[in-house]
Amino acid sequence: MKNILTRRTIRKYSGRDIEPALLNRLLTEAARTQTMGNLQLYSVVVTRSVQGKEALAPAHFNQPMVKQAPVVLTICADFRRTTKWAECRQANPGYDNLLSFMNAATDALLFTQTFCNLAEEEGLGLCYLGTTLYMPQNIIEALKLPKLVFPVATLTVGWPAEEPPLSDRLPLESFVHDEHYHSPTSADINRYYAAKEALPENREFVRINHKQTLAQVFTDIRYTKADNEAMSRGLQEALKRQGFI
Amino acid sequence: MKNILTRRTIRKYSGRDIEPALLNRLLTEAARTQTMGNLQLYSVVVTRSVQGKEALAPAHFNQPMVKQAPVVLTICADFRRTTKWAECRQANPGYDNLLSFMNAATDALLFTQTFCNLAEEEGLGLCYLGTTLYMPQNIIEALKLPKLVFPVATLTVGWPAEEPPLSDRLPLESFVHDEHYHSPTSADINRYYAAKEALPENREFVRINHKQTLAQVFTDIRYTKADNEAMSRGLQEALKRQGFI
Repeated sequence: MKNILTRRTIRKYSGRDIEPALLNRLLTEAARTQTMGNLQLYSVVVTRSVQGKEALAPAHFNQPMVKQAPVVLTICADFRRTTKWAECRQANPGYDNLLSFMNAATDALLFTQTFCNLAEEEGLGLCYLGTTLYMPQNIIEALKLPKLVFPVATLTVGWPAEEPPLSDRLPLESFVHDEHYHSPTSADINRYYAAKEALPENREFVRINHKQTLAQVFTDIRYTKADNEAMSRGLQEALKRQGFI
Repeated sequence: MKNILTRRTIRKYSGRDIEPALLNRLLTEAARTQTMGNLQLYSVVVTRSVQGKEALAPAHFNQPMVKQAPVVLTICADFRRTTKWAECRQANPGYDNLLSFMNAATDALLFTQTFCNLAEEEGLGLCYLGTTLYMPQNIIEALKLPKLVFPVATLTVGWPAEEPPLSDRLPLESFVHDEHYHSPTSADINRYYAAKEALPENREFVRINHKQTLAQVFTDIRYTKADNEAMSRGLQEALKRQGFI
């Protein structure tokens, strides 16, 4: 992973396709990731068709990557296969609950990240769509996900046709705590966020959004309380419909 | 990541310590992982002290790795730091909800897995403790986690003192779906699980547990409905106390 320090999200892809053999190799290797009880509580839906991408696009706010990427992967928390296995083997499954959802979501996300690391090492470009949890019902319908299957991550994957600048990161001391959690003081916050707030692109971001601070761009525009609360209700409803709560 | 195909969980560690400089480099590199809005919604609590490990051990069923490993990492979904930043910047945060918990848990788990991949490439051995979500309240108290911080993953980390056999994995067709989800039939299940069920260690596992099938070992002993439901209630309570629901 010599490329980890130069990784960036890639949103523009060349016309080149991804060979099924390459994709299958990367998915097979990613499955070496540790998994709960070796149960592999995840599934991946591979979307290559134009119709398939069009069906998914609205759930991702029609971000152009969904239709432009040769491959869209939707990674799901999946207790369906394990439950079916139990039913076929005179065993009584009990995975229709919150803990089981979190266990399967964990498995799915760990698998997803190993796939990302492998694919980027291979030279592929990825965009991780955080929108997957925003309107999960749309994705559930588009991909015909049965009960006990829930989408937790989406990746658009292709060969890079851009090389955007590296994004900044907070200093290590802001997210690593010795022995126990140390709640940040105002002085800590000033130190942690100074470099981020001073970046020309972030100052411009504040200006064009007519805000006073960078934090306000996040709280008032990008991730608002009202949106989060509305989408939390949708998420809860979808978890209920999929049989996890 | 040439070692991905030979990775295994390591539960026994040599007496050699992990240099803080190495650990910090790996944590810094892992933070290159994509993160929601570049907010880095995670924290890592590093436990090296004997007392710290003793305080964490009961939450992990006193598995011996917790006390034997030179380092225990507890990775947390963290909206506390971002919320404090907003409060210091005349911004109105709205991250006390289920969606925000899932967003932060996602960030934390993706970060965790890149750390795992980097650490294993460095030659370190890891055990991912799935127990983190079982009794989160104990961990919250041991690590003094404030509201909007929630433990989602624990890693015991050290230099390997064992080389266990590779664990099996299901065939690719069992977890990869073309275009939409294809619910497995009984015949599919037989095909997917045949190799796993035929393994001598799994046959032995069934025998010593006095069960008829391998699936029964999971449903009746390892991950039972009663345990899952009880722990789901504990998880929900802890999410409430930490201010996420």
